[in-house]
Amino acid sequence: MALPLADTDTISTFDADGRVLAEDLISSLDVPGHDNSSMDGYAVRSADLATNDVLQVTQRIPAGSYGHALEPLAAARIFTGAPIPPGADTVVMQEDTEALTERASVRLLNVPKAGQWIRRQGEDVARGTVVLARGQQLSPAALGLAASIGFDQLQVTRPVRVALFSTGDELVMPGDVAPADMLPGAIYNSNRFFLRAMLKRLGCEVTDLGIVPDRLDATVQALAVASLQHDLILTSGGVSVGEEDHIKPAVQTLGELKLWQLAIKPGKPFAYGRIQSSSANPFAHFIGLPGNPVSSFVTFMLLVRPFVLKLLGVTQVEPHAMTAVAQFSWPKADKRREFLRVRQLAGGGLALFENQSSGVLTSAVWGDGLVDNPPGQTIAPGDEVRYIPFSALLS
Amino acid sequence: MALPLADTDTISTFDADGRVLAEDLISSLDVPGHDNSSMDGYAVRSADLATNDVLQVTQRIPAGSYGHALEPLAAARIFTGAPIPPGADTVVMQEDTEALTERASVRLLNVPKAGQWIRRQGEDVARGTVVLARGQQLSPAALGLAASIGFDQLQVTRPVRVALFSTGDELVMPGDVAPADMLPGAIYNSNRFFLRAMLKRLGCEVTDLGIVPDRLDATVQALAVASLQHDLILTSGGVSVGEEDHIKPAVQTLGELKLWQLAIKPGKPFAYGRIQSSSANPFAHFIGLPGNPVSSFVTFMLLVRPFVLKLLGVTQVEPHAMTAVAQFSWPKADKRREFLRVRQLAGGGLALFENQSSGVLTSAVWGDGLVDNPPGQTIAPGDEVRYIPFSALLS
Repeated sequence: MALPLADTDTISTFDADGRVLAEDLISSLDVPGHDNSSMDGYAVRSADLATNDVLQVTQRIPAGSYGHALEPLAAARIFTGAPIPPGADTVVMQEDTEALTERASVRLLNVPKAGQWIRRQGEDVARGTVVLARGQQLSPAALGLAASIGFDQLQVTRPVRVALFSTGDELVMPGDVAPADMLPGAIYNSNRFFLRAMLKRLGCEVTDLGIVPDRLDATVQALAVASLQHDLILTSGGVSVGEEDHIKPAVQTLGELKLWQLAIKPGKPFAYGRIQSSSANPFAHFIGLPGNPVSSFVTFMLLVRPFVLKLLGVTQVEPHAMTAVAQFSWPKADKRREFLRVRQLAGGGLALFENQSSGVLTSAVWGDGLVDNPPGQTIAPGDEVRYIPFSALLS
Repeated sequence: MALPLADTDTISTFDADGRVLAEDLISSLDVPGHDNSSMDGYAVRSADLATNDVLQVTQRIPAGSYGHALEPLAAARIFTGAPIPPGADTVVMQEDTEALTERASVRLLNVPKAGQWIRRQGEDVARGTVVLARGQQLSPAALGLAASIGFDQLQVTRPVRVALFSTGDELVMPGDVAPADMLPGAIYNSNRFFLRAMLKRLGCEVTDLGIVPDRLDATVQALAVASLQHDLILTSGGVSVGEEDHIKPAVQTLGELKLWQLAIKPGKPFAYGRIQSSSANPFAHFIGLPGNPVSSFVTFMLLVRPFVLKLLGVTQVEPHAMTAVAQFSWPKADKRREFLRVRQLAGGGLALFENQSSGVLTSAVWGDGLVDNPPGQTIAPGDEVRYIPFSALLS
């Protein structure tokens, strides 16, 4: 459904954290380039050590320089990262030596294993290896790995352009009305804040169209505007079956609507569609999230996040789940698959936030992850459950 | 050792993802502000339902508006989020009703439980509650929660200013020399890339001073410049005991050096100090990381991250660790506490990256976390181990 975007950007490796590779990175060198020392110490010939514990120090090889062939019964003073000179096959740690006669010779206090303290050529990366593959989301370590084989620029997919709006005449922006002046039935728009932040964490370029009035014409107009320059239109609210919910008829006016009949809780009201656009864009994807803050928060993580990652060309979009032990009871099974807000306890296991109502955003702040509970399943203390940390769902 | 910075910024709640609260946020309202419907349907008096299954529809309450007192034997058409009118005590879901005579009356197909489908005033947040506490790092959900009680601006600690440089004459910047032209012993600087990315993920303002030559005078000069406008000077390389390692004497020239004698692997060479500054800053913290990429990467996550979070005033700096099952052998115990690069398997449990050498950055890309293995401990398949996912260590 979500085909990767075709456009790519070429950017500095320094700026590529979180971006998605649009090319395979193939190493044109071995890392390390040569056998080198992993310690400060002395490079020696192991054959000499059977009979001698004092060696002449005939050369000095700092990191970044290169020695010459090591003579028999000689040692090369060597530093971490410096290439092993020809003839040497072992490094003796500085801590296992005693310098003699103003460092002209050295006594070996321990006989090392042959081959010790040497990092081998190509041990990290062998020439010709695909070091990072197209479709991989770049982490800080991946940037370091790309740099270590000489890539100062990377080809990545361009950011997903998202238009965001909320519907609901009850919504008020914080700052516009003071808490003491809030009318009955009015609530502050909170979804707009976390949805924007979560989209930005996914690297999206977000156009925030604000709050759209609960009228069909206004909703159609907002969708039409949003479809022009965006890959994805994301809305919150207005997707229930009520007469005040104009999102679905508005999408049907401009394109096609497909409901994702997802039996999940929170998050039942949820819509997907496509909106035709007169611009160069063939169409914009549409995702309508529920208006309840927790439903909106959870469905974003479970459904919008993988959708955006697919648009970016990411091959691995599933969050890392793990097995954890419940330290709580969930005695009442639901026919839907439930996502419970939980927190890891210092002593191990998971605690449940008392109020699992979908209006209660405190659960998403108090918690550090979700338990993915299958339909019809109760939970007793000590049961193993499927746990997905928020940290795996927010980038 | 790391006292929180005193300065704060007041910023839009929209821009506060990842920042750290410098104030307690106290709610001056109840959320929800009134009892309201959690469904589209009809608000009714539960006492009526014992004898009647058809009620007159006498009012219509969309979200954002407010009804009037509900008469006996009447129902109010109500939408999700709208306030429950006085007199009503229960909501019947639309799906459980049948509209009659052009919606002038409604038949109830199921008798609901009294009190059903109502979100209670203050259920999410009670007036006067500390909703978010000073020292909390703000997540997307926390921004939503702050907005839900009317905060459009937040007081947060200012970013940590970090000066970053690498030492090592063997280091070459990618882009400066093509892979085919690399001299023996030369390696690309990779640490600079992941250290910058990790500092940015922590919200730091980074001044990148590049690669400093392996000379004492150059190192002293770089530290002196860095100490002027920064809270923290972070270096990689040059902290071993070798003669080519000038970081420690340079720090001692300008301030005081304290070694953190940490028996961890990777990451043994590690230094902490303070450098006096002639500016308004009383001093700059100094942290010297090892030059090996994996050592640098791991010690950043284990030691620099919590240090920066403490400077930001974060109260909870420990990463979330969890218990997981090893699907590998680690037959050789080390006297140091080891941090092994591992990856979660689809079927559960952890796999080990074959090459745990500290020069091998591929382990940090292949892996998705660390096993924290105590000194002297071997691991057999099936053993429970302490696992820390990278996702918990990178923000």
